[in-house]
Amino acid sequence: MLSSTNLRDWLFLERIVRFGDTDAAGVIHFYHLLRWSHEAWEESLQVFGLKAIDIFPSLVDIKSLIPIALPIVHCEAEFMAPIRIEDHLEIEVSPSRLDAGSFQVKYGFTKGKNIVANSLIRHRAIHTESRHPCDLPEDIDRWLDASS
Amino acid sequence: MLSSTNLRDWLFLERIVRFGDTDAAGVIHFYHLLRWSHEAWEESLQVFGLKAIDIFPSLVDIKSLIPIALPIVHCEAEFMAPIRIEDHLEIEVSPSRLDAGSFQVKYGFTKGKNIVANSLIRHRAIHTESRHPCDLPEDIDRWLDASS
Amino acid sequence: MLSSTNLRDWLFLERIVRFGDTDAAGVIHFYHLLRWSHEAWEESLQVFGLKAIDIFPSLVDIKSLIPIALPIVHCEAEFMAPIRIEDHLEIEVSPSRLDAGSFQVKYGFTKGKNIVANSLIRHRAIHTESRHPCDLPEDIDRWLDASS
Amino acid sequence: MLSSTNLRDWLFLERIVRFGDTDAAGVIHFYHLLRWSHEAWEESLQVFGLKAIDIFPSLVDIKSLIPIALPIVHCEAEFMAPIRIEDHLEIEVSPSRLDAGSFQVKYGFTKGKNIVANSLIRHRAIHTESRHPCDLPEDIDRWLDASS
Repeated sequence: MLSSTNLRDWLFLERIVRFGDTDAAGVIHFYHLLRWSHEAWEESLQVFGLKAIDIFPSLVDIKSLIPIALPIVHCEAEFMAPIRIEDHLEIEVSPSRLDAGSFQVKYGFTKGKNIVANSLIRHRAIHTESRHPCDLPEDIDRWLDASS
Repeated sequence: MLSSTNLRDWLFLERIVRFGDTDAAGVIHFYHLLRWSHEAWEESLQVFGLKAIDIFPSLVDIKSLIPIALPIVHCEAEFMAPIRIEDHLEIEVSPSRLDAGSFQVKYGFTKGKNIVANSLIRHRAIHTESRHPCDLPEDIDRWLDASS
Repeated sequence: MLSSTNLRDWLFLERIVRFGDTDAAGVIHFYHLLRWSHEAWEESLQVFGLKAIDIFPSLVDIKSLIPIALPIVHCEAEFMAPIRIEDHLEIEVSPSRLDAGSFQVKYGFTKGKNIVANSLIRHRAIHTESRHPCDLPEDIDRWLDASS
Repeated sequence: MLSSTNLRDWLFLERIVRFGDTDAAGVIHFYHLLRWSHEAWEESLQVFGLKAIDIFPSLVDIKSLIPIALPIVHCEAEFMAPIRIEDHLEIEVSPSRLDAGSFQVKYGFTKGKNIVANSLIRHRAIHTESRHPCDLPEDIDRWLDASS
């Protein structure tokens, strides 16, 4: 029997394209795909059960600033077919650890049966204050283990 | 007994704040609230049963370009409390007709019991080619009637 | 003879519209006008001689976090004529103090001889940590005095 | 003696980072680098002497819709050092033809003497209406020849 955890529902998300995502050519303006990818990552962490406040730096309370940040060191995207307003996209999130201090996430965007785009974002852990490389935070490690 | 239509579920939407919506002050960068408002309008039309392709201009098929566009002539927003990453916002959409050719939509954003922001966007119908003012399209009229 | 200060060149800026600012209707997507307004404010402060790092909060060095932030409490915009790709816009920046702790800036956008849009953004000073209202920082006071 | 053409000033541009480009981590939110890259491409074409209205599709006059569009098929970016508010970036634009119907542009971002990021965007020419691949438009061919 599959439990909800076995289904790994945090890796299968959806998105509907909106008017402001398009440009005067009538299709999405390209960089929004990378915005959607990052937002899919955040949604994936949230559905998995993590709290954004434990993962992302913020000035809410500078005394308890999180010790580790996960800046993006590389991103890329491929566009295979036009993406238009109100398209319903399914997003498959595929994370993998690269080494103790970095990981990448692939995002596959499909419309119906067709792959219309994919992207990849690579993150590296650093100490928030010194900006020196360090190991991934425990929460991200758990999410990576459960996702692969 | 209330039917789904009576509940007017197309006027009550939700949004979760993401990292890219914030700026270095740790709260949302202000203009994203107006982006969310427009996206809430599109979602409202969609939940109501309208198709974006009948409302928004597009180059998909220039031979069947929609005859009426609904450009924004005015917008405004008030910010009452900080909005932060992963905040769950409820959005109440309140449309009203201004005259035969224009309407406005108010958006109220609440977090828990508190109003954190509101906004207003005003649209005027024009002929897509001539850009002369005209009456609202029938679809929008139906949505306005059902919403008030 | 007019000195550079008399010309107040920090209040007269320019902007060229880019493809990603448009939507599928072929004109700018509305909220970008508010983004340009904020960027015009930042450019105005910079041309006047202020440093962003003294005005805007940042995590660069949390030990020296600036004590006062200037969140936006209200914004609005009017759109009078379509704004298209590669339009050269002139922006007139008109700041005014509202009281000891708040000010607003009006932005007028012209294309050739025609006003195509205008906007207004209102800021209120708060202590960064407590978020309680306070007086405007000295730098902003100087910029307001010189601008009116 | 170098003429203005030999200096190829359309390949060396500048950009100042603004507050809305940052996120709550205090550095630029990653996808804005790709926005800047596309805007640098548009500025490069403009400084070279081309008109956006001849390159980019638009609904301004649907009867004279440009016959060829240049959608993006691939993009990528590398981030080497934090980019912060008010950083003055120099952008070197390096275009190259890939085949008769496609080209790519590399963008190198430096701050003082340091490379802080680079990016690459690949475009393929298609007929605007049929979306079938075709040769690059003449204007782009001229810009590519002059730039390499």
